[in-house]
Amino acid sequence: MRYFIKRYHPPGTPPGTLAGPAPPGAATIRVTVYGEDGFSEEQVADPAECARFLAATRITWTHVQGPVDAALLQRLREVFKLHPLAVEDVLNSGQRPKLESYDDHLFAVMSLPVMREDQPVTEQVSLFLGHGFVLSFHPGAQDPFEPVRRRLRGGTGSMRGRGADYLVYALMDLTVDQGFPLLEELGERIEDLEEELLRNPAPETLREIHRLKRELLFLRRMLWPQREVINSMLRDGDHLIREETRLYLRDCYDHTIQIMDLLESYRDMTAGMVDVYLSSVSNRLNDVMRVLTIIATIFIPLTFITGIYGMNFGNNTKSPWAMPELNWYYGYPAILLVLLAVALLLLLFFKRKGWL
Amino acid sequence: MRYFIKRYHPPGTPPGTLAGPAPPGAATIRVTVYGEDGFSEEQVADPAECARFLAATRITWTHVQGPVDAALLQRLREVFKLHPLAVEDVLNSGQRPKLESYDDHLFAVMSLPVMREDQPVTEQVSLFLGHGFVLSFHPGAQDPFEPVRRRLRGGTGSMRGRGADYLVYALMDLTVDQGFPLLEELGERIEDLEEELLRNPAPETLREIHRLKRELLFLRRMLWPQREVINSMLRDGDHLIREETRLYLRDCYDHTIQIMDLLESYRDMTAGMVDVYLSSVSNRLNDVMRVLTIIATIFIPLTFITGIYGMNFGNNTKSPWAMPELNWYYGYPAILLVLLAVALLLLLFFKRKGWL
Amino acid sequence: MRYFIKRYHPPGTPPGTLAGPAPPGAATIRVTVYGEDGFSEEQVADPAECARFLAATRITWTHVQGPVDAALLQRLREVFKLHPLAVEDVLNSGQRPKLESYDDHLFAVMSLPVMREDQPVTEQVSLFLGHGFVLSFHPGAQDPFEPVRRRLRGGTGSMRGRGADYLVYALMDLTVDQGFPLLEELGERIEDLEEELLRNPAPETLREIHRLKRELLFLRRMLWPQREVINSMLRDGDHLIREETRLYLRDCYDHTIQIMDLLESYRDMTAGMVDVYLSSVSNRLNDVMRVLTIIATIFIPLTFITGIYGMNFGNNTKSPWAMPELNWYYGYPAILLVLLAVALLLLLFFKRKGWL
Amino acid sequence: MRYFIKRYHPPGTPPGTLAGPAPPGAATIRVTVYGEDGFSEEQVADPAECARFLAATRITWTHVQGPVDAALLQRLREVFKLHPLAVEDVLNSGQRPKLESYDDHLFAVMSLPVMREDQPVTEQVSLFLGHGFVLSFHPGAQDPFEPVRRRLRGGTGSMRGRGADYLVYALMDLTVDQGFPLLEELGERIEDLEEELLRNPAPETLREIHRLKRELLFLRRMLWPQREVINSMLRDGDHLIREETRLYLRDCYDHTIQIMDLLESYRDMTAGMVDVYLSSVSNRLNDVMRVLTIIATIFIPLTFITGIYGMNFGNNTKSPWAMPELNWYYGYPAILLVLLAVALLLLLFFKRKGWL
Amino acid sequence: MRYFIKRYHPPGTPPGTLAGPAPPGAATIRVTVYGEDGFSEEQVADPAECARFLAATRITWTHVQGPVDAALLQRLREVFKLHPLAVEDVLNSGQRPKLESYDDHLFAVMSLPVMREDQPVTEQVSLFLGHGFVLSFHPGAQDPFEPVRRRLRGGTGSMRGRGADYLVYALMDLTVDQGFPLLEELGERIEDLEEELLRNPAPETLREIHRLKRELLFLRRMLWPQREVINSMLRDGDHLIREETRLYLRDCYDHTIQIMDLLESYRDMTAGMVDVYLSSVSNRLNDVMRVLTIIATIFIPLTFITGIYGMNFGNNTKSPWAMPELNWYYGYPAILLVLLAVALLLLLFFKRKGWL
Repeated sequence: MRYFIKRYHPPGTPPGTLAGPAPPGAATIRVTVYGEDGFSEEQVADPAECARFLAATRITWTHVQGPVDAALLQRLREVFKLHPLAVEDVLNSGQRPKLESYDDHLFAVMSLPVMREDQPVTEQVSLFLGHGFVLSFHPGAQDPFEPVRRRLRGGTGSMRGRGADYLVYALMDLTVDQGFPLLEELGERIEDLEEELLRNPAPETLREIHRLKRELLFLRRMLWPQREVINSMLRDGDHLIREETRLYLRDCYDHTIQIMDLLESYRDMTAGMVDVYLSSVSNRLNDVMRVLTIIATIFIPLTFITGIYGMNFGNNTKSPWAMPELNWYYGYPAILLVLLAVALLLLLFFKRKGWL
Repeated sequence: MRYFIKRYHPPGTPPGTLAGPAPPGAATIRVTVYGEDGFSEEQVADPAECARFLAATRITWTHVQGPVDAALLQRLREVFKLHPLAVEDVLNSGQRPKLESYDDHLFAVMSLPVMREDQPVTEQVSLFLGHGFVLSFHPGAQDPFEPVRRRLRGGTGSMRGRGADYLVYALMDLTVDQGFPLLEELGERIEDLEEELLRNPAPETLREIHRLKRELLFLRRMLWPQREVINSMLRDGDHLIREETRLYLRDCYDHTIQIMDLLESYRDMTAGMVDVYLSSVSNRLNDVMRVLTIIATIFIPLTFITGIYGMNFGNNTKSPWAMPELNWYYGYPAILLVLLAVALLLLLFFKRKGWL
Repeated sequence: MRYFIKRYHPPGTPPGTLAGPAPPGAATIRVTVYGEDGFSEEQVADPAECARFLAATRITWTHVQGPVDAALLQRLREVFKLHPLAVEDVLNSGQRPKLESYDDHLFAVMSLPVMREDQPVTEQVSLFLGHGFVLSFHPGAQDPFEPVRRRLRGGTGSMRGRGADYLVYALMDLTVDQGFPLLEELGERIEDLEEELLRNPAPETLREIHRLKRELLFLRRMLWPQREVINSMLRDGDHLIREETRLYLRDCYDHTIQIMDLLESYRDMTAGMVDVYLSSVSNRLNDVMRVLTIIATIFIPLTFITGIYGMNFGNNTKSPWAMPELNWYYGYPAILLVLLAVALLLLLFFKRKGWL
Repeated sequence: MRYFIKRYHPPGTPPGTLAGPAPPGAATIRVTVYGEDGFSEEQVADPAECARFLAATRITWTHVQGPVDAALLQRLREVFKLHPLAVEDVLNSGQRPKLESYDDHLFAVMSLPVMREDQPVTEQVSLFLGHGFVLSFHPGAQDPFEPVRRRLRGGTGSMRGRGADYLVYALMDLTVDQGFPLLEELGERIEDLEEELLRNPAPETLREIHRLKRELLFLRRMLWPQREVINSMLRDGDHLIREETRLYLRDCYDHTIQIMDLLESYRDMTAGMVDVYLSSVSNRLNDVMRVLTIIATIFIPLTFITGIYGMNFGNNTKSPWAMPELNWYYGYPAILLVLLAVALLLLLFFKRKGWL
Repeated sequence: MRYFIKRYHPPGTPPGTLAGPAPPGAATIRVTVYGEDGFSEEQVADPAECARFLAATRITWTHVQGPVDAALLQRLREVFKLHPLAVEDVLNSGQRPKLESYDDHLFAVMSLPVMREDQPVTEQVSLFLGHGFVLSFHPGAQDPFEPVRRRLRGGTGSMRGRGADYLVYALMDLTVDQGFPLLEELGERIEDLEEELLRNPAPETLREIHRLKRELLFLRRMLWPQREVINSMLRDGDHLIREETRLYLRDCYDHTIQIMDLLESYRDMTAGMVDVYLSSVSNRLNDVMRVLTIIATIFIPLTFITGIYGMNFGNNTKSPWAMPELNWYYGYPAILLVLLAVALLLLLFFKRKGWL
């Protein structure tokens, strides 16, 4: 996993500069025009064409899917009269979610959470809301906003009759709600890890926990500011967000809080799991040591005793003090009984200590 | 334990959509109508029937017990003229407690804490407060609001003479107060665990502590926002909450704080318990190692000495340097005394080290 | 130590209910009446009698010492026209400190910290302040407010000439200040523990630290809200607290902050002590292991060598390869020198490693 | 180190009481009078004399150096018409820094950080600011404010022409800035400790870290509130602090923040050092265990083999199965080669494990 | 790494004192004058010369590169009429970033993050903004502001046509943005460390982690306040910062937040890495112990058995009880089988325990 994902111009570059190598692949521009009385959609090749769709009575939604280059952005900037600082942020992906309010348009950066190769990552979604138009960018391969277009196409609900602010809400809500399936999957992964932790903790388990912590940290960093973005829209976007849309934004705000809440409890859980892991490692060491101790401390004295009678003093036949035991009639069985007794006494001692 | 308990629509679903598989079982609808001059209660089969109970002079409390499906909700929504966004949240259970204020009604989600199979869980309680009516939902099997109905039925206190806002207060207070018996039980469990921890800490003890931490974390996540719900009612619910009811809500607010306070101290306590557990494991390892060390280090040198006299140099009868000790008259008792002396010296050394 | 000390009515009980088993023992009611021109005190048997002391020109302080039952409270409530919600909290002891402001009286719950059997506990003090009267409750056996009564009796200072608000301040200040001797004692206990920790850390030391942490946690929970209580009085109690008393309350507020400050540093200290303890346990294990290792690793190779010459190959007199050493003239002293050399080499190795 | 350093009256003492045993030693009172046109200083014996220095056109700075007793304070209180509550706090040393604003004077408690016997401690500085006078107290042996007096004496800068509020600023700034040399010394101590930690960590190192943590904790507790004291002066001291002095106070406020910042990073550093210490202890245990394991596991099997040929089966000359090896021609060299082979195999195994 | 880097005057020095040893090396003063209609730059030797460049219609940017001494500062102070307190802070390097607003100029201290000998350090940048002039200081060897001068020189963008406030913004933005390449490098170092940690954790790895933590802590301390500096400019610098520049400052503010965000996640990551390191050390100890235990506990009982038959009881030919096994025909093979059986049983036991 990469820790630093932000693209940035070299320090000292004038603000609003659009530059950088053209990314591989090309972007597609899809213009959707709708109003209470109709709906049309078209794919355009030249960004300058977008201008002809702008109309006072209808909502024009221009969506740029795929990697954008500086030239394309420059031309879009001219068509929609966007602020250079905002446009620069579309190019410099890896942005933290934020809301910038300009004279006659709002600019929002959102983080779309997706599962990529079993890893949670976020993709930057850039949204412009102006009078009667919405301009959206997503650098990925697949258009995440297809469900919204489908709703417009089918005329479901009253969406066609609502303003551009409602469209931006719908796009934001879709972006935010992608967090739920992702968190559901992560939640299942935590449950699995926890079971593994209790049943059979291995170094891999800890590595998994560590990876999870890192991913949750990353998600938190990229999703936490969305809460503030939507809150700012509720507070500041006076002239562009209508009162009736605010109710929906509040619902969306609520979702961001639920997602942060879940992320926080996931993080707390994984922190506790490290403790459990470390203690289970300690416990196993304890078990190993106990078996070693019991066997070693039983046999070491016994071996000492056999060592005594392995000494060659018995060869001295001249002295009655020289290992007379060797010559006793029941000497050997007696010593075996002594060994047995010592072993039993030690076992009793361990039993008392609670080590058996 | 499940970490992700929220039900949600697929991202991109229009807000206010009521859909999803019908849950097993059926809901029962119980309508209670009361005023200063009377009281009646009835169970209705068709939600449309509820309309006939609504009256200007009396309070109508409609309680839906058990799992609700989309169709039922849709019909209730029409009878009571509720906001679609709120109604959606009744269906998507596992919500975080929250308060939404609409033009002419309030919608509150609360978490009812209950002990289910020895585990603290929460069940979603949804409450609507409008002019002269209260609509409540509880998806569980047993009606938790029976005590309130009993109070109304018996005419105890001045409850019949108060407004719908007081009824909502009573339902909320009941929901919040269910936290006390639950926390009492958890408190006892912590006391038991602590005693076990000091007397006989086993890996199971740690697992219990971990489980407890998880449950407290979960409870905190589901109960913490209730504080904000009641605080919002005190601040915002101007036209629907009367001044005299605010005093009671403040009391209820106080209870939510007491519950969070307790939860926080429980969490702090369990955190300290992990330390104690880990150190007791270390201590035991220490004990084990000390016994091993003492026995091994006493007998290893002794065995070495017996090993010396077990060497076959004594067979060399030609050299006077070849283990003359073997042939000494008091050789064997002397070596036994040497062994004893070495053992005593080592014991003295351990005594000095403070290991005995 | 109990974790859950709050008494509560079963959920669903109407607010303001006074019920519960009568506690053992009886309460005594002591009425103190004073003004600039006089002072009298009397013990009354019947709460209804209190009414006759209430007068416009003097301050009436009614103190109820010992366990109260529902009936007594009910009668006091009628005499002083108190709010039912407040009176309920007098009965349900174990409350968190709080301030409730009613139309014409204030109700405050405070925690009196005391040392009971070497354990810091808190006892609930309930205070009502109305126009010209103060009503105080303390469930314990000994009257903690005797010093204030003594000041009134002796006419010390200008206390008799001040209002009921000043009396409440004096009672609160006394309650808060009881924290100082208690914290002094706990501070000494921490110093003792720390010395023990550095000199001779035993498992009991950790248990003591754990117990201390628990007690500090408990004290913090019960004392922290007092800060807010006094702050609320400064901010909200407009009509009942006069400007000149505010200065004194600010001083009392300052004391609550000092007490919380101390509690916080105590908690931080005890947290650090667990680290020191755990590391001293590790160090001891290290010491034990080092001695074992040194002795074992010196004697194990030596014993191996004696084992070689204990093999019975020497009996084979037919082969010149069969342990010729045994028959050398200086074989035995030579092997002893070899053993000595091996031991010295190993000691040198350990010296180099810094283990000796 | 003492944890509880506050002096306090027994709970229940009337506020403003001046009492307590007279401290050993006597205070000296030094009065400095200055204005744009002159400067004089004098040491007075009787506090009542101070009155004669008070004048409308000049600034009178009375500094009391050394331990004060109740009688002295009482007389000063009368001369300067100070509030009893404030005066009490001069006596009860060990106070937390605070600012109290009375009708016509400000009272500030500050903590002067000093190094005493290699330990950072704080000494209480009490300051009164009234119209045209400043009264300062310092209980220590040496006057810390000599540099300010020297500036006044020398007429350096425009200090003589500024008001009493500027003098209080100068005294506070001096008090706060004493934190810099102290923190510089502590910083060097941390650097030394860190080097020791990496080079040769001993149990004493941990004790030093623990001591440092305790001292930083203590300093933080005593210095942190100074930030709030100076902030309150900037906000509240309207009539006594002139606009032009505020700029200087802001600079002083900045210094308190820098000091807290440093303290916080020091604390974070020491927390990390405990981790490093514990892990180095673990590493050493690991090293010890590895050597033990290698030597023991090599020689234990070898010793077993010698044990086999130490058995007396060879004496049985009747059975061809009874240790025929003993009678082989190359039996002894063969067994030595076997021993060598086993040892080499085990060494290879450890090499593979990466333990050598 | 040094922990205390601030230079400070001895406590008690009058505020605004310019003193201290002259640093080695000399500063160069470069004056850049520009407006919509022109641009010129010049290096001056005498600070007094700067006065002649100040003009009402153009912007004068004076940049002092290299170490400044008190005399130089004093003369610049007079030319630009700067506040003494601010000028003092230019001299006392190692300042925390801050913004001071004086009557007719703003003074800002910023931290320029740079990589010096593989260590992240910060260099103090001091900026004065007045009407029509900017005065900047940087004590290092290389001028960090060359990119801005190049932009002015080339006339790129509209920079020449904007005011002095925009120039200050450009300098600040450059200073802040230097954090990105630095954080990118640190991010890569963390990734490397993490890989090393998982592949081959050595004590050096922990030391590296510790070093990294220290560096991140240091960076955080020096960069965190920049956020507040820029925020204060947005809020307070009314008369000197024009509305159009605020938009750019907001963008710069956003960058400071992104940098703090990254620093925080880096810190969280390194904290988790210590856990992983410690557990991998534990795991290795476990592995070592397991091998020791297995080999020791297998051979210790076997050696005991050989010890038994090494006892000299067999020499007693008179008793039939004296080790008759020695004389059995298949005695030796039998005992070898017994040894084998014991070894296999023990291996089976370990297999069962999961230790093999």
